[in-house]
Amino acid sequence: MARTTKRLHKISSRTLGLAPGTIAVPEDAPRPVIKIMAYDRDNLVEETLENVADIPAYIKKFPVSWIDVTGLGAQDVIESFGTTFDLHILALEDVLNTGNRPKMEAFDSNLFVIARMAHFLKGKKDQLELEQVSFFLGKGFVISFQERPGDTLETVRDRIRKNSGARVRLLDADYLLYALIDAIVDGYYPVLERFGDILEDMEDEIVNNPTHDCIRKTHRLKRELQHLRHALWPMREVISGLIDDDMMSDKIEPYLRDCRDHIVLVLDMLETYRERSAGLIDIYLSIVGHKTNEVMKLLTVISTIFIPLGFIAGLYGMNFDTQHPMNLPELSSPIGYPVTLGVMAMITTGFLIYFKKLGWIGNKKNH
Amino acid sequence: MARTTKRLHKISSRTLGLAPGTIAVPEDAPRPVIKIMAYDRDNLVEETLENVADIPAYIKKFPVSWIDVTGLGAQDVIESFGTTFDLHILALEDVLNTGNRPKMEAFDSNLFVIARMAHFLKGKKDQLELEQVSFFLGKGFVISFQERPGDTLETVRDRIRKNSGARVRLLDADYLLYALIDAIVDGYYPVLERFGDILEDMEDEIVNNPTHDCIRKTHRLKRELQHLRHALWPMREVISGLIDDDMMSDKIEPYLRDCRDHIVLVLDMLETYRERSAGLIDIYLSIVGHKTNEVMKLLTVISTIFIPLGFIAGLYGMNFDTQHPMNLPELSSPIGYPVTLGVMAMITTGFLIYFKKLGWIGNKKNH
Amino acid sequence: MARTTKRLHKISSRTLGLAPGTIAVPEDAPRPVIKIMAYDRDNLVEETLENVADIPAYIKKFPVSWIDVTGLGAQDVIESFGTTFDLHILALEDVLNTGNRPKMEAFDSNLFVIARMAHFLKGKKDQLELEQVSFFLGKGFVISFQERPGDTLETVRDRIRKNSGARVRLLDADYLLYALIDAIVDGYYPVLERFGDILEDMEDEIVNNPTHDCIRKTHRLKRELQHLRHALWPMREVISGLIDDDMMSDKIEPYLRDCRDHIVLVLDMLETYRERSAGLIDIYLSIVGHKTNEVMKLLTVISTIFIPLGFIAGLYGMNFDTQHPMNLPELSSPIGYPVTLGVMAMITTGFLIYFKKLGWIGNKKNH
Amino acid sequence: MARTTKRLHKISSRTLGLAPGTIAVPEDAPRPVIKIMAYDRDNLVEETLENVADIPAYIKKFPVSWIDVTGLGAQDVIESFGTTFDLHILALEDVLNTGNRPKMEAFDSNLFVIARMAHFLKGKKDQLELEQVSFFLGKGFVISFQERPGDTLETVRDRIRKNSGARVRLLDADYLLYALIDAIVDGYYPVLERFGDILEDMEDEIVNNPTHDCIRKTHRLKRELQHLRHALWPMREVISGLIDDDMMSDKIEPYLRDCRDHIVLVLDMLETYRERSAGLIDIYLSIVGHKTNEVMKLLTVISTIFIPLGFIAGLYGMNFDTQHPMNLPELSSPIGYPVTLGVMAMITTGFLIYFKKLGWIGNKKNH
Amino acid sequence: MARTTKRLHKISSRTLGLAPGTIAVPEDAPRPVIKIMAYDRDNLVEETLENVADIPAYIKKFPVSWIDVTGLGAQDVIESFGTTFDLHILALEDVLNTGNRPKMEAFDSNLFVIARMAHFLKGKKDQLELEQVSFFLGKGFVISFQERPGDTLETVRDRIRKNSGARVRLLDADYLLYALIDAIVDGYYPVLERFGDILEDMEDEIVNNPTHDCIRKTHRLKRELQHLRHALWPMREVISGLIDDDMMSDKIEPYLRDCRDHIVLVLDMLETYRERSAGLIDIYLSIVGHKTNEVMKLLTVISTIFIPLGFIAGLYGMNFDTQHPMNLPELSSPIGYPVTLGVMAMITTGFLIYFKKLGWIGNKKNH
Repeated sequence: MARTTKRLHKISSRTLGLAPGTIAVPEDAPRPVIKIMAYDRDNLVEETLENVADIPAYIKKFPVSWIDVTGLGAQDVIESFGTTFDLHILALEDVLNTGNRPKMEAFDSNLFVIARMAHFLKGKKDQLELEQVSFFLGKGFVISFQERPGDTLETVRDRIRKNSGARVRLLDADYLLYALIDAIVDGYYPVLERFGDILEDMEDEIVNNPTHDCIRKTHRLKRELQHLRHALWPMREVISGLIDDDMMSDKIEPYLRDCRDHIVLVLDMLETYRERSAGLIDIYLSIVGHKTNEVMKLLTVISTIFIPLGFIAGLYGMNFDTQHPMNLPELSSPIGYPVTLGVMAMITTGFLIYFKKLGWIGNKKNH
Repeated sequence: MARTTKRLHKISSRTLGLAPGTIAVPEDAPRPVIKIMAYDRDNLVEETLENVADIPAYIKKFPVSWIDVTGLGAQDVIESFGTTFDLHILALEDVLNTGNRPKMEAFDSNLFVIARMAHFLKGKKDQLELEQVSFFLGKGFVISFQERPGDTLETVRDRIRKNSGARVRLLDADYLLYALIDAIVDGYYPVLERFGDILEDMEDEIVNNPTHDCIRKTHRLKRELQHLRHALWPMREVISGLIDDDMMSDKIEPYLRDCRDHIVLVLDMLETYRERSAGLIDIYLSIVGHKTNEVMKLLTVISTIFIPLGFIAGLYGMNFDTQHPMNLPELSSPIGYPVTLGVMAMITTGFLIYFKKLGWIGNKKNH
Repeated sequence: MARTTKRLHKISSRTLGLAPGTIAVPEDAPRPVIKIMAYDRDNLVEETLENVADIPAYIKKFPVSWIDVTGLGAQDVIESFGTTFDLHILALEDVLNTGNRPKMEAFDSNLFVIARMAHFLKGKKDQLELEQVSFFLGKGFVISFQERPGDTLETVRDRIRKNSGARVRLLDADYLLYALIDAIVDGYYPVLERFGDILEDMEDEIVNNPTHDCIRKTHRLKRELQHLRHALWPMREVISGLIDDDMMSDKIEPYLRDCRDHIVLVLDMLETYRERSAGLIDIYLSIVGHKTNEVMKLLTVISTIFIPLGFIAGLYGMNFDTQHPMNLPELSSPIGYPVTLGVMAMITTGFLIYFKKLGWIGNKKNH
Repeated sequence: MARTTKRLHKISSRTLGLAPGTIAVPEDAPRPVIKIMAYDRDNLVEETLENVADIPAYIKKFPVSWIDVTGLGAQDVIESFGTTFDLHILALEDVLNTGNRPKMEAFDSNLFVIARMAHFLKGKKDQLELEQVSFFLGKGFVISFQERPGDTLETVRDRIRKNSGARVRLLDADYLLYALIDAIVDGYYPVLERFGDILEDMEDEIVNNPTHDCIRKTHRLKRELQHLRHALWPMREVISGLIDDDMMSDKIEPYLRDCRDHIVLVLDMLETYRERSAGLIDIYLSIVGHKTNEVMKLLTVISTIFIPLGFIAGLYGMNFDTQHPMNLPELSSPIGYPVTLGVMAMITTGFLIYFKKLGWIGNKKNH
Repeated sequence: MARTTKRLHKISSRTLGLAPGTIAVPEDAPRPVIKIMAYDRDNLVEETLENVADIPAYIKKFPVSWIDVTGLGAQDVIESFGTTFDLHILALEDVLNTGNRPKMEAFDSNLFVIARMAHFLKGKKDQLELEQVSFFLGKGFVISFQERPGDTLETVRDRIRKNSGARVRLLDADYLLYALIDAIVDGYYPVLERFGDILEDMEDEIVNNPTHDCIRKTHRLKRELQHLRHALWPMREVISGLIDDDMMSDKIEPYLRDCRDHIVLVLDMLETYRERSAGLIDIYLSIVGHKTNEVMKLLTVISTIFIPLGFIAGLYGMNFDTQHPMNLPELSSPIGYPVTLGVMAMITTGFLIYFKKLGWIGNKKNH
């Protein structure tokens, strides 16, 4: 939860001191690296730029340019994007405040989209990262802002690079925006797979070795599933907004609808996973209840048999004066001991039969 | 869950490497078998075709043709369908990605419908299969794509074959599409029946032999019920979309409404089953709680009676020097032993009456 | 649940073999008995007819005729209704498939309504029956189809018979349809009363004699409440549909709204009952938890007191050689026994005070 | 629950024998007492009338008249209201069937409103009463029907009586209707306060003395909260209906919106209370679980220490023939007893340290 | 809960005695302090006023004036605001009744907004305060009414004071209103942070030292989260209302939408927190269940081993007359004692291996 809390801190420190629409870079954010892919059907230029001012030349020259900015740690760079491309001050603020919900906002000259990219942090397989990615779609260009290096957009880059009549090379910037969002949505699948594996592992663990640590892990899992859901749920509206917006041409519409179907599919799966993790708690409680029951049964079997036997033994350990004929006459009997042992054996047998009948002992298969 | 997870893998490997609208056949998919049923009121031709190019001739000759493709394992075949019948590339992609939600999409020259067919895998009664079936409705034909052989559409074939004035022989391709979807919906009933039987078996099992394995089974059941629900829920919208669409003639409307009523009925039942399986967990927990209580009672009855008795016996087993008149004078009494036994009997009787009053012993009927 | 499952079988066997709109009578259905009540303000004819063909004469002669068909077991009779009154084939199919949800369908010449009548089967007070009743409203007539004899419509018949200016004798067939539906809705009240009594009985039973059988009964109850809900919930829409339909005259509207209010009231009560039965499970679990706690307390009180005492007794039952002065010198003390007894009494008293302080013993009122 | 059930009986006995729109007074209903307050800005007449026929004179003379009828036990009186003021027969039936949901119905010449007044029965602080109050708003008059004497409308009467420029004296009958409804809504506040107090008492009781009776009380409370909710929830729609209705003048609108805000506020509180009472069950179960755990700990501490000690004592109570040197040589040792005691002390100390480490003993503060 | 209950008392005492639209100051409310900030682009006047009548002069002179009233304890002051600025009587009543839900009401000459400001009371970090703040937006002015000193609006004041081209100095009063509401919404972030910390602390506490007091705290937390939710949820509608209202100019719209996005974000977080606190109860129950299981295991291990051993010892403590050869011949055996000890050791070892195999002992890591 540290991540979310930390983000909260960032937001609140902004909000407690600054006006809305203030450009303030997040602490510890890496310096932005600006990469551009500008292409038409036959040509592709892929470069890393130092200067925002260099970009317009590419946009003029190529029908589609994708400017991918990784890292938000330089206020001047962000601001020069704002002035160069006429980006709204509130949109820029949202780019820098990395705790936003996905949303779409149509401004006069461009379209602003926030999405959340799900991936596991490199090296640490268990640390889910929901990175904010912001897009601006303008005439002939898409600008994307990512929090840090590493993304699930590589497939799009590959498709652009391969010239083999790829649709992305033939269509406009609105298709590129769709392709990027689609790649982000598709990036949820391997995350879901991973959660599916974790769920299956936890199910095994709970059955084989039910410790209450499982419950904590289950709750952590539920929390992460909920974060995923919060990150994806508003995307449906974003896509619907894109479908309705004029900046997205009509021929993109079936693609967007397809993308929305994928989102709903992932949300369905998240719901299933959520139910499954809730079910884990039931399984845990039922197993613990069962185990307590088993422990109790063993205690009861042993106690029920041996406490009465112990009493009988104690009885004939009493020191009443056996000279009086009514006091413990059994002790003087020549077969007192074997008879006593026999009685004890009978009691034991009786209880064993009883427990067997109750199903407490013998049928190991039973549990 | 293996099935769903596997499907996820398939989707993700697609999405991580390929562009939207790419035709890629699923791994291990069987080669397609193309069967055609072309008919008018009086004639019926039923054949297995080798070549997609042969189909248009039938469509021209007969008012209604049903092309049923079983197996998705040949990219060229699927692609030639696409070119022959002018099917949208995204629709074809959805046909091949077998993890889609049911949906309806209206294209210029045809109507695209995805549904999910519920049936138990042949031979393995407990393996629920939710196979994706895709339909294209065009002028005079319906094309259906199934993942593998075996379906719940046989009743429709039978009705077409029997010429006895069957409505399907008199009406257009839109009625055929309705009939196929209706057959798929009706195919949920035997699946529900089977789940009803499983639920009843599990209820018996939980009462007679409550092991925590029941809880796992219950959760598996709930998961499958949820899969069924996810497969059926969007069908309501699909039917509503068909009702509104121009390609479905007005006289089909009451049939479609009837079909939608059936879907809602099945969803109602799924909800009931879901509640019932949730109730099983309550029953399990209450039975285990009750059993633990019973075990505890036995332990307590035995311990409460025999531990005090054992103490008394121990008391008179002490070795105090009885020569001192205050030390264990009871031991020298001529009736010390019978009196002690009497006291023990009284204590036992007292406790038994007490336990009887508490209802812990005697009234077997009670639990 | 047997009933619902059986109905499912019926539907599925239909759907797996037959075309939509096929007239097939349910198995074991009783033969139809056709009764007619035809009346105007001053005259009433009430007869049992043998032949469907006789009906039109009555309809011509009287402004309102109610044809009440009880039993669905004769295909020819149902079919002749279809042809005589121009009933849609799908409506007739729904009449015969007795597992439908309540619904309303407006056809060209008539209005089709399915409702569910709740009553307890005669003789068996605990067997809830949700019988399907279908209505056709045409010009001057209402046809009702019931599954079997016995209904909650007797009050309407009584009102028609009593000529005392009854509204039903003055108004048209649409009012008669309303009156019949209203009688069906009113028939839910005694069923709810009965469930209320059952709930109260079960509450008493759970408090006085909590067995896990209560939980099963509670779940059966919840299931039946849900069936009632499924049977009534869609009636709201049916009534709304009737209000909007042209075949119902405007002056019937306030009556229909009143009827809908009653439905909502019953649904509110069903919700309350549902919550109450869910609450029963909490009460059960809390009582069992409390009882286990009580059992444990008794065991702990007895064990805590007597196990230490038994140890002391055992201590002085040891056979160390008392000739050595350090070995068990207490045994030779002239007051060893009374002192030991005194110590035991002190220990007992101490524990008793402790347990009293904990509230485990003494204050019977406490639980 | 007796109250609600009883009401159900009343309704059902009505519905099973009578036509809709039948005027039948509830059993045991007190005879109606008719009070009138007729006023303009300067004059106020407040009288108890014997005869419904006397009312129109007041209405003609004064701009606003409030006719308050308490008690529904006289069919003729109710009927003469119906004829005198042209009240719809279904509305009159609803007035007499005191189990209705709140609703609003606009008739040609008047407006009909049903509300539910929440108050605790006089003398019995714990008996919540949800009395039905029906209003008719006509030109220049409001008629209210209450089930029995005692209401929360006294504040309105006081305001009318005090002439100090009270708004109610200046405005029309629609404002009076608003004022009455507002007084009814405001009457929920003290009821909520009382429930808040009960909740707090129960929280204390559950922590200090958790008996399973608390759970029953909690469920009774939840039921009453739900009744309150059912009584208030539809009032939102009633107010919205009044806002839209022509008979309520525009200047009343802000007042009605304010009243609706109060209703939503009370509903919010009811939800909070409901959650709190649900939380009580969790607290109860956690306390009982904790207590059982504490009981078990005590039992385990005592048993774990003394059962092994008792075994050692028993060991040296064995009667093996010590003449053989390998048989119980300890018994003949001169320091056998003190060494044994020392071993016992060590065992005890060991266990005590262990239990201390586990946190089972010593830190009283801990629980 | 004391706070909320107290507020209820206040409302109810109002409603039980007073007419709607009555101005009655809350008990114990501090006397109002009136501060004004009037400014244009270049000038700023910031003063504390004694008299409401002084305000209009400022409003005339400056384009924007913010009148901030802290404390509601003077009826005459509130009333003179009402007359000076033409505020609706119901709005003024709502200002004084500090238990309202957030809402927006558009009057003829001004806009009325109620919001709730979340902050922790000074000095007492754990006492959440949801103070009602009311705003009136008129031509050129915003009036705010706060219950008591201390707020989260200081950031807005700072921005006004700093002349550095702050947007607030350039825009109209509607922007000021937005800025104030935005500051209130932003004020929820630190509160959420604090709750996040509390949740984390409680999670630690529950794992390390699970006492049932945790459950009470958890429920208190859930209650406060719900209060926060009730305070924020209606704000979404308030913002939507502001967006639609004519008094807010179009250029404020993106800001308001941004503010609404923040509200939804906070609501998402509240939901997450709520789930987390619900999860705490599961964790608690699972830990207590586990602990009880552990206690039971220890008891069972000790009892199972030592009760049979104790029985054997007791057996050879019996006093049967060993002169008869069948009575306890073991006692006379020269190796009776070592053999017995050996048997005891074997039994112990056997049980230990069994318990080890069950995983009850030895693998400390396991839990």
